[in-house]
Amino acid sequence: MVRLGKNKLHNRNNLRSQGNEYFDYYYHTPGGLPGNFEVSASAVPSSIELIDYDKKHVIRRKNFSPEESIPYLEQKTVTWVDVQGLGTEEILNRVGRVFKLHRLLLEDVVNVPQRPKCQDYADQLLIIAQVVRLKTKGEGFDTEQVSFIIAENYLLTFQENTVFDPFELVKDQIRLSQGQIRELGIDYLTYRLIDGIIEGYFPILEHYEDRIATLEEKIIGNPTRSDLEQVYRIRRELLSLRRLIWPLRDVLSVLTRTGYNNINIEVQVYFRDCYDHVIQLLEIIESYRELASSLMEVYLSAISNRVNEVMKLLTIISTIFIPLTFIAGLYGMNFEFMPELKSKWGYYICLAVMALIAITLIYFFWRKGWFQRLY
Amino acid sequence: MVRLGKNKLHNRNNLRSQGNEYFDYYYHTPGGLPGNFEVSASAVPSSIELIDYDKKHVIRRKNFSPEESIPYLEQKTVTWVDVQGLGTEEILNRVGRVFKLHRLLLEDVVNVPQRPKCQDYADQLLIIAQVVRLKTKGEGFDTEQVSFIIAENYLLTFQENTVFDPFELVKDQIRLSQGQIRELGIDYLTYRLIDGIIEGYFPILEHYEDRIATLEEKIIGNPTRSDLEQVYRIRRELLSLRRLIWPLRDVLSVLTRTGYNNINIEVQVYFRDCYDHVIQLLEIIESYRELASSLMEVYLSAISNRVNEVMKLLTIISTIFIPLTFIAGLYGMNFEFMPELKSKWGYYICLAVMALIAITLIYFFWRKGWFQRLY
Amino acid sequence: MVRLGKNKLHNRNNLRSQGNEYFDYYYHTPGGLPGNFEVSASAVPSSIELIDYDKKHVIRRKNFSPEESIPYLEQKTVTWVDVQGLGTEEILNRVGRVFKLHRLLLEDVVNVPQRPKCQDYADQLLIIAQVVRLKTKGEGFDTEQVSFIIAENYLLTFQENTVFDPFELVKDQIRLSQGQIRELGIDYLTYRLIDGIIEGYFPILEHYEDRIATLEEKIIGNPTRSDLEQVYRIRRELLSLRRLIWPLRDVLSVLTRTGYNNINIEVQVYFRDCYDHVIQLLEIIESYRELASSLMEVYLSAISNRVNEVMKLLTIISTIFIPLTFIAGLYGMNFEFMPELKSKWGYYICLAVMALIAITLIYFFWRKGWFQRLY
Amino acid sequence: MVRLGKNKLHNRNNLRSQGNEYFDYYYHTPGGLPGNFEVSASAVPSSIELIDYDKKHVIRRKNFSPEESIPYLEQKTVTWVDVQGLGTEEILNRVGRVFKLHRLLLEDVVNVPQRPKCQDYADQLLIIAQVVRLKTKGEGFDTEQVSFIIAENYLLTFQENTVFDPFELVKDQIRLSQGQIRELGIDYLTYRLIDGIIEGYFPILEHYEDRIATLEEKIIGNPTRSDLEQVYRIRRELLSLRRLIWPLRDVLSVLTRTGYNNINIEVQVYFRDCYDHVIQLLEIIESYRELASSLMEVYLSAISNRVNEVMKLLTIISTIFIPLTFIAGLYGMNFEFMPELKSKWGYYICLAVMALIAITLIYFFWRKGWFQRLY
Amino acid sequence: MVRLGKNKLHNRNNLRSQGNEYFDYYYHTPGGLPGNFEVSASAVPSSIELIDYDKKHVIRRKNFSPEESIPYLEQKTVTWVDVQGLGTEEILNRVGRVFKLHRLLLEDVVNVPQRPKCQDYADQLLIIAQVVRLKTKGEGFDTEQVSFIIAENYLLTFQENTVFDPFELVKDQIRLSQGQIRELGIDYLTYRLIDGIIEGYFPILEHYEDRIATLEEKIIGNPTRSDLEQVYRIRRELLSLRRLIWPLRDVLSVLTRTGYNNINIEVQVYFRDCYDHVIQLLEIIESYRELASSLMEVYLSAISNRVNEVMKLLTIISTIFIPLTFIAGLYGMNFEFMPELKSKWGYYICLAVMALIAITLIYFFWRKGWFQRLY
Repeated sequence: MVRLGKNKLHNRNNLRSQGNEYFDYYYHTPGGLPGNFEVSASAVPSSIELIDYDKKHVIRRKNFSPEESIPYLEQKTVTWVDVQGLGTEEILNRVGRVFKLHRLLLEDVVNVPQRPKCQDYADQLLIIAQVVRLKTKGEGFDTEQVSFIIAENYLLTFQENTVFDPFELVKDQIRLSQGQIRELGIDYLTYRLIDGIIEGYFPILEHYEDRIATLEEKIIGNPTRSDLEQVYRIRRELLSLRRLIWPLRDVLSVLTRTGYNNINIEVQVYFRDCYDHVIQLLEIIESYRELASSLMEVYLSAISNRVNEVMKLLTIISTIFIPLTFIAGLYGMNFEFMPELKSKWGYYICLAVMALIAITLIYFFWRKGWFQRLY
Repeated sequence: MVRLGKNKLHNRNNLRSQGNEYFDYYYHTPGGLPGNFEVSASAVPSSIELIDYDKKHVIRRKNFSPEESIPYLEQKTVTWVDVQGLGTEEILNRVGRVFKLHRLLLEDVVNVPQRPKCQDYADQLLIIAQVVRLKTKGEGFDTEQVSFIIAENYLLTFQENTVFDPFELVKDQIRLSQGQIRELGIDYLTYRLIDGIIEGYFPILEHYEDRIATLEEKIIGNPTRSDLEQVYRIRRELLSLRRLIWPLRDVLSVLTRTGYNNINIEVQVYFRDCYDHVIQLLEIIESYRELASSLMEVYLSAISNRVNEVMKLLTIISTIFIPLTFIAGLYGMNFEFMPELKSKWGYYICLAVMALIAITLIYFFWRKGWFQRLY
Repeated sequence: MVRLGKNKLHNRNNLRSQGNEYFDYYYHTPGGLPGNFEVSASAVPSSIELIDYDKKHVIRRKNFSPEESIPYLEQKTVTWVDVQGLGTEEILNRVGRVFKLHRLLLEDVVNVPQRPKCQDYADQLLIIAQVVRLKTKGEGFDTEQVSFIIAENYLLTFQENTVFDPFELVKDQIRLSQGQIRELGIDYLTYRLIDGIIEGYFPILEHYEDRIATLEEKIIGNPTRSDLEQVYRIRRELLSLRRLIWPLRDVLSVLTRTGYNNINIEVQVYFRDCYDHVIQLLEIIESYRELASSLMEVYLSAISNRVNEVMKLLTIISTIFIPLTFIAGLYGMNFEFMPELKSKWGYYICLAVMALIAITLIYFFWRKGWFQRLY
Repeated sequence: MVRLGKNKLHNRNNLRSQGNEYFDYYYHTPGGLPGNFEVSASAVPSSIELIDYDKKHVIRRKNFSPEESIPYLEQKTVTWVDVQGLGTEEILNRVGRVFKLHRLLLEDVVNVPQRPKCQDYADQLLIIAQVVRLKTKGEGFDTEQVSFIIAENYLLTFQENTVFDPFELVKDQIRLSQGQIRELGIDYLTYRLIDGIIEGYFPILEHYEDRIATLEEKIIGNPTRSDLEQVYRIRRELLSLRRLIWPLRDVLSVLTRTGYNNINIEVQVYFRDCYDHVIQLLEIIESYRELASSLMEVYLSAISNRVNEVMKLLTIISTIFIPLTFIAGLYGMNFEFMPELKSKWGYYICLAVMALIAITLIYFFWRKGWFQRLY
Repeated sequence: MVRLGKNKLHNRNNLRSQGNEYFDYYYHTPGGLPGNFEVSASAVPSSIELIDYDKKHVIRRKNFSPEESIPYLEQKTVTWVDVQGLGTEEILNRVGRVFKLHRLLLEDVVNVPQRPKCQDYADQLLIIAQVVRLKTKGEGFDTEQVSFIIAENYLLTFQENTVFDPFELVKDQIRLSQGQIRELGIDYLTYRLIDGIIEGYFPILEHYEDRIATLEEKIIGNPTRSDLEQVYRIRRELLSLRRLIWPLRDVLSVLTRTGYNNINIEVQVYFRDCYDHVIQLLEIIESYRELASSLMEVYLSAISNRVNEVMKLLTIISTIFIPLTFIAGLYGMNFEFMPELKSKWGYYICLAVMALIAITLIYFFWRKGWFQRLY
C-alpha cells in the first residue's frame, strides 16, 4: 500500500530527527538551521560520473572526484557531472564547494524528496523532478528524486538512487552520437533528460487505466468488497501522482516562456513540447480521478441494487409461504367444532386454495418483473 | 466500449515500442530521441492531393509527388497540399524536406493522436485537431487526427485516414467556385476546414443528448442495472470528448486575438465565430456532464425508493400474517386443559378475532399510504 | 418536459439539413458554407416596423419595406427598425443589403437560437439575447431570440416571434413621451430594451423558487417518487437557464467598460445597472442550483429514513411474534411424553410466559424509541 | 422558514406591480421605466436626522426637512444627514432634489433590497450594504438595507427601518467625542458605520456555529428526521448569508485600493481592516457550508448504520427461531408412523437439540460482534 | 472536541463584551471604537525579553521595561524585543508608545486570534501567524498567535503564551552563534522565526496522516459508528488547519516578490523556500481532505455492503425454512381425510422431500456465491 506523502514527510523528519555528528548545530525540532543537508543512513553511497563532449570527442569517466572536473569546466565543451547516490556526505560537500552551490540549493538536492520546482540562483538554475517507477512487487509506484543544476558551462545532476539509471539511454546516445545531441549544448541535454522523465509517466498512467478498466467491469457486473478498496487506493495513488506532476507544469511553463540565460531560444521549442505532454498527463490524471470517483458512486448504486434483489427474493418467498403457513396453522388448531375438518374434500379444497393463492402471487410477482435477475 | 484515452496512450507507445529500421537511433523506452516520427504498421499508405486555385483557375490533382508541388508554391495562387494517410514513411520524409518542416512538427503530425494545439514555428503555424465520427457499430465515437501547416503561400494538411475525407465538401466548393472561397486566401481556406471539423461535433452532442433523454425516462420510471452502466459510460465518453474540444478553445482564442502574419484581420472575424461555437460546445458538454452526474444520484435514490417498496410489501404481509399464525399456533397446542377448544363457538370467535386483527392492520397500512405504489 | 438544448441543436440542424433553394451551394453536412442564413419552414413571416423620433416628433409605421427606411437614416432623429419574424427570406435579404450587414452577422441573427453575445463589426455592434417566457402549458420556459444591431444613426432589431412583442411597452413610452426616452439617443433606447429583457428573467426565477419551496416541504415531510423527478427537472432547467444568462454577463461587462463609439458615457451608467442585475440573477440561479442539489441529498436521506422505519415495524412484529409462535409450535408437538401438556395449569402458565415475553420485548423497543414515528 | 431571496424578489415585484399614482408612467411588466423608485405601502414613514460636527461643536437634530440642511453643507464641518424609513415619497423626492441624486441612485436606495455594491456617480460614491439581525422569533435572520452616499462635504445615509438604529452607538460617540471620530472627516465616519455593520455579522455566524455544533452531536449520536431538515435549513441560510457578504468583498476591495477623492489615504488603512474581516467572514461561512455538507453525508451514513442494526436484530431473531419453529412444526405433523413421537425421551432430546441449535447460533452471532450495539 | 473557529469568535467577543475600565469609551456591540485592544482576563501577564547582537557580541535580558530598549534601537546592532504574554495592559501600552505602533496594529496584535496576514504600516511591516501544537490531551490542536513587527533597526515580536517559547531554539543559536544568524540582519532573523513556525505544521500533518491511515484500515475492514465520527472530525480539523495556513501563502508570496525596504534581496531567497513549504503544506492538506471525503463515501458503501450481507443471511435462512415449515404445517392440519398421514412411509417421504428442497436451495445460494462472506 502506497502511503500518501508518507515518504515525503518521513524522510524529511527522519533526516531532521536523527542526530547528525557532522552538522552538530543541527536541531530536530522546528526552528533548526536552514540550508543544511543531512545524509540519511539508508541513502546510497555517492559516486560521480563525468561526461564531456562536443561534436568531435566524447569522454565518459566513472568514480570521478569533484575536484577533477574543474579543468573540464574551463573548456568550451559540454560538461555533465552526474552524482549518483546521496549517501556520502563528504563527496556532496566537496561537490558543493567545487560548483559553489547555495546552501538552500544543496539542502533541496540532498534532503529528498522535495516538491518538483524550478528555482533561479543567480548564475545557476535548479530544477527538481521526481522519476516514477511502478513497484515490482504489489501495486503503486516508487519515486526517486533527480535534480538538475544548469549553469553556463556545465550540467550537474543528482540522482537519489543508483539501481536504475534513468539517464542511461541518453548517455549511450551521446557516446554513439545519435541524433542532434552532440551538436547542441547543455540546454538540449537538459531537455533530453527531462523529456525522458516526463515520458516515463505515461506507462504509469497506462497501468492505472488498466486497473480502472478491470474495476469497471467487476463493479458494474458483480461488485465485491475488495473492489471498494481498490477504487479507494486508485484515488489515493492518483492524488499523489498528481502532486508529483502538477508542479512540473509550472517548471516547464517557466522554461518555455522566460529567457533564462542558459537556455537557447531554439531549445525552448523542445521544452514547449514537454510542456504539452505535462498538460496532457494532467488532463489524463484528472479524467482518471473523475472516473474513479464515478466508480465509487457506481459501486454504491450497485450494492443498493443488490440489496434490492436480495430483498426481492426474501419478499417473494415470505409473501407466498406466510399466508399458506397461516392456513395450514388454521386447520392445525384443535377446536372441537371445526366443520371443515370433518369434510371429506376439506383437505383437497384446502390444498387447492393454497395452490390458487400461490399461483396468484407468483403471477403478481412475475408481472412486476421481480424474477428477472433472481437466478 | 470506448476505452478512454486508450488509443492515445497505445498508439503513442506502439509507435515508440516498435523497432523502426529507418530511424535506427530510436529508443523504445523513455529517453528516446525526440523529433522522430514512426510510421505505425497499421497506418494507411500516404498519397498526396494538390489543389491550386485563384479567382480564375483551379487545379486539382491526386497522387502527386511532394517535389512536384514546388513550382506551385512559387506562384501567387492558393496552394493546398493535402497528405492523406500517414503510412508511407518515405513520402512523409520527402514532404518534410520539401516544406522544410521542423522535426518536432513532423513528429506531432505523424505520431497520432496528439492533443489539439496551435504552435508557431517561425514562418509556419501548426494546428492540430481531431475529427470525431460516431462509431458505425456500437456506441461511442472514433477520432482521426487532422493537422494544418499554414505558411505564407501554401496550406499543408495531413489526414490520418482516407476512408472518409472531411474536406471533400470544401474541395467541391472550390471546384464549383461556391461562396467566397475562390476570392479569399489561405487563411479563409483554413477557417473553412476548421469550421467543418467544429460543426462536426454538434451531431455527436445530439447523439449524447438522445442517450441522456432515453436514460432519464428509464431511470426515473423503472431503473435497471444496465442504466447504471449507461450513465457511467456516458460520463466517461463526455469526459474524453471534452478532452478533445477543450484545447480547441485555446487554439481558436489564439487565432482570433493575435496577429499571425499569415492570418488576415478580415478572416479573424470568421475564426471568432468558430470560437463562439467551441465555447457553446463546451457549455453543452458541461451541462450534459452535470445531467449525467445528477442521473447517477437519481438512480441511487430510485433504487432506494424501490428497496423501500419491496420492504413495505414484506412488512405488510408479515405484520398481518405473523400474529394470525401465532393465534392459529396457540390453538394448535396440545394442552389438555384449554377451555376455548371445547367451546362450540370457539373456532368462529377465533376466526372473527383473526379477521378483526387483519382488517385493523390493513386499515392502518392503508391510512399510511403504503398500498399506493405496490401494485 | 423541457429538452435541454434540444431547440438549440435541432433548429441549427434543421436549418442546415433542409434543402434550401435560394442558397443552392448550401451543404447539409459540416463543411457547408458559412455566412449564409436559412429560413426555417416553421418561422413566422417577417414584417418591418419603423419608429422614428426625436424630442418633438414621433413616427410609427408598420409593414414597412426595408428600402423605405433609407431617407429616415439620413436624418438626425433616432431611427429604430424592428424586424418581426424571421420567416421571409426575401425581406431579410433586403434588410441585409440596405443596412450593409456582414454575412456572419445576418447568419447569427436568422439561424436561431444563438448563444447570447456581443460582437463588434466595424461600425455596427451586434448584441444577441434570449427572451424567456414561462410556458403557458406545463412546466419550463420557452425562449425567443432578439438581436440588436446598433449603428451611429439607427437601431435595427430582429425578433424571432410576433405573438408577443417584448418591446411593446417601450414603444408606447416613446409614443407618449414618458420618461427620458425621447430626450436621449439610440444607446439609451438599446438600454431600455435590454433592461426589459433582463428584468423579464426575475419572474422566471420566482417561478423556480416557488417550485423549490413546494418541493422542500414535500421532500422533508413525505417524499414521493415524483418529487425526485421534479428535483431533477428543476436542476436541468436551471442549468439551461444559466446557459442563457451567463453570456449576458460578458455582453454587459463589455458594454459597461469599453468605449464603443455608439454608446454614450452617460448611458454606460445605465448598462452598469443592468450588469448588476445580471450578476444578481446568476447568484440566485447558483443558489437555487445548490438548493436543488441539497434537496436531492435530502431526498435520499429521507428515503433511507423511511426504509429504516419500515424495517423497524417489521422487526418489532417479527421479534415479538416469532418466539411466541415457536412456543406455541413447541406445545403443538405430538410427542407422547410431554408432561407440561398434562398439567392443569400448563396452558395458563404458557400464556403467562408468552405475555411476559411480549411485554418485555415491547418495553425494550419502547425504551429504544422505536415506536416514535411508526403510527 | 426563511424563504431564500423571497424578500428580495417579492419586494422588487411588489413595488413594480402596485399602481403608483405619482409616477404614472410606471409599468408593471418588464420594460417599465428605469430610475424611478416606488414607495412600498408597508415601508416605514421617513424622517430625517442631521448631525453636524467638527472638533469643537456638535449639532444633532431630528425631524429635519431636507432643505434645512443646505446651509450646513456649505460649512467646513462634517455634515451627516441620516434618512430613517423609506415610506414617505415626498420627503425622498425632496432629498433627491437637494442632494442632486442620480435617478438610478435613488432607485437603488429606495427599492429595497438591493445587492450590496459600491458605485461611483461623478462626485458622489454610493455604497449599499445589508444589516443583518437574528430573528427574535424562530430561526434565521432579517436584513435591512443601509445606503451611504459619500460626497465631499456631506454623508447621506438611508435606513430601511427605524425600529433599531444600527448607527446609534456612533452617534453617541460623536456626541461624547469619544475616540478620534470628531477629529477625522466624512471618510472616517463612513468607515465607522460600515465597520459596525460588518462586525454585526460575527454574532450571526456564532449563532450558526452553535446550531451546527448541536446538530453534530445529535446526528452522530442519534439522528432524527428533524435533524435532516435542520441541516438543510442551515445550508440554505448560509447560502443566503454568503450572498449578502460576498459583494461586500468587492466593495471594500474598491475602497481600499483605488483613490476615491472623498476617501483619505489615512482612512484606507481602516478600510483594509474591514476588508480583512470580510475575508474572514467569508472563510468562516465557507467552512460552515462544508461542515453542513459533511453533516448531510454523516446523516445518511448514520441512517444506513441504523438500518443495519435493525436488520441485525431481525436477522438474529429470525435465524434462531425459524429453524426451531420448523422442528416444532415437524413433530407437530400428524403422520401415524413417526417413531420419535413414541419415544419416551423424544421430547427431551428434541428440546436439547433445539437448545443446541440456539446456543450455536447465538455463539455465531456473538463471535461476529452483532450484539454489540443492539441494546 | 475541537470547536472550529470557536476560539476565534469567542475570544473576539469576550474581549469586546467585557467591560474594560481603561478604555471606558469602549462598546460591546458592533459600532464600538476601532483601534483599541482589550486585555482578556485569562491572558498571560506580559514580560519583555531583549536580545541584541551583532557578529561580535550578544546580549540577552529578560524582564525588561519597554523604555530601556530605546538606547539599543539607536545602535547598528540587531535588536529583537520579544513580548511574551498579552495580559498586562500597561506594558502593552508602553510598548505601543515606545515603538510608535499604529492603533490598528496594536489591536491586531493583542486581540487574539487574528487571521494570519502581512500588512504594511509605513516604516513597519506587521506579520501575524499562528503557531500550532497538538493537544497533549485528546485530539486536535491548539493555536497561539505570534506577531512580528519588522522595522529598519529592530524586530518586535509578540507571543500569546509563555508556556512554550517557539523561539527558544533560535535564541540559543544566536547565543552560540550557530550558522549564519549572527552575520545577517533582522530580515534573516525574521525568516528563521517564521520558518520555525511553518516547519512546525509538518508534525501536525503527520498526526493527521496517521489518523487517516488508521481509519482507512478500519473502515475498509470493519467499519463502526465511531469511525464515522472520526472521519467527520478529521475533515473539520483539516478545514480549520487550512484556514490557518492558507493566508500564510499570501504573506510569503508578498515577502518573496515585493521589495520591502526592510527585507534584503539575499534573504528573499530564504523566504522563497518558506513559500515552497507552505505550498507543499496546502497540497498535503488538500490531499488529506480529499482522502477524508473519499473515506466518507467508502464508509457509506461499506455499511451498505454490510446491510447486504445481513440481508443475505436472513434471506438464506428464511428461504430454506419457510417452505419447510409450511410443509410441516400442512401435515399438522387436522383434516380427517388426509391419505398421506396414514401411509407408512409418509413421514419418511415427507422428510426426504424437505431435505431435497433444503439441499436444492442451499446449492442455489452456493452457486450465487452468497455464502462467501457470511462466516
